[in-house]
Amino acid sequence: MPSCGDFCPSSCPLMKPVVRNLFKKTPSTGGGEEIQPLFEGQSFRLESIHSHGQPTPTGFWYDQAGDEWVLLARGSARLEIEGEGMMDLTSGDHLLIPVGCRHRVDCVSDDAVWLALHSGVTLHSAQ
Amino acid sequence: MPSCGDFCPSSCPLMKPVVRNLFKKTPSTGGGEEIQPLFEGQSFRLESIHSHGQPTPTGFWYDQAGDEWVLLARGSARLEIEGEGMMDLTSGDHLLIPVGCRHRVDCVSDDAVWLALHSGVTLHSAQ
Repeated sequence: MPSCGDFCPSSCPLMKPVVRNLFKKTPSTGGGEEIQPLFEGQSFRLESIHSHGQPTPTGFWYDQAGDEWVLLARGSARLEIEGEGMMDLTSGDHLLIPVGCRHRVDCVSDDAVWLALHSGVTLHSAQ
Repeated sequence: MPSCGDFCPSSCPLMKPVVRNLFKKTPSTGGGEEIQPLFEGQSFRLESIHSHGQPTPTGFWYDQAGDEWVLLARGSARLEIEGEGMMDLTSGDHLLIPVGCRHRVDCVSDDAVWLALHSGVTLHSAQ
């Protein structure tokens, strides 16, 4: 656990609100998505995802351990939901993907930025 | 608790991913912000806020019961943090406002849309 920053307990005297920007360009890893943790708690984790135009590899399905809410904050994408087919998404579209609902990103624009909120993830067992 | 929809337990056979759009125009209530719950869990609540250009009334401070992460997803705003002064925010800016950190919206554009993720809120005591 970092000593300070966004994940610092609010009782930390060094904790100050710091503004960051979701759309700030991140360096491409050259091979796929870049995931940045933003905020986490006892049973949730919020992260941003810069896709860099990289879809989910063919044949791979995400199968989350908990419910996941996703927002396409910028760009466009096509999401494939197993048993439901394709969903074309544009900036501002959001949906809840329930646990056990397999899904993948079929295609995605270079500038796409997602927010993902994972529920039911126990991150801090001491809390 | 609704019988289905975004808050439906994922074990519900009626649960299907439904796409909504964060930027869809909502009718102004005529007097302030419009808050829409998006996703909630054992210890968190995610909501969207359409500001309709309405700042926090003079002299009023938000003083949350838990840590709160906020994103200005669209528009511009000026946030006042007690003891820190004013912060000018633009689309994509986000910050964590720790519990006990009093704050208010000094001014905000007509088209502003926020996301707010509240932590430490016990919503489902049975879980």
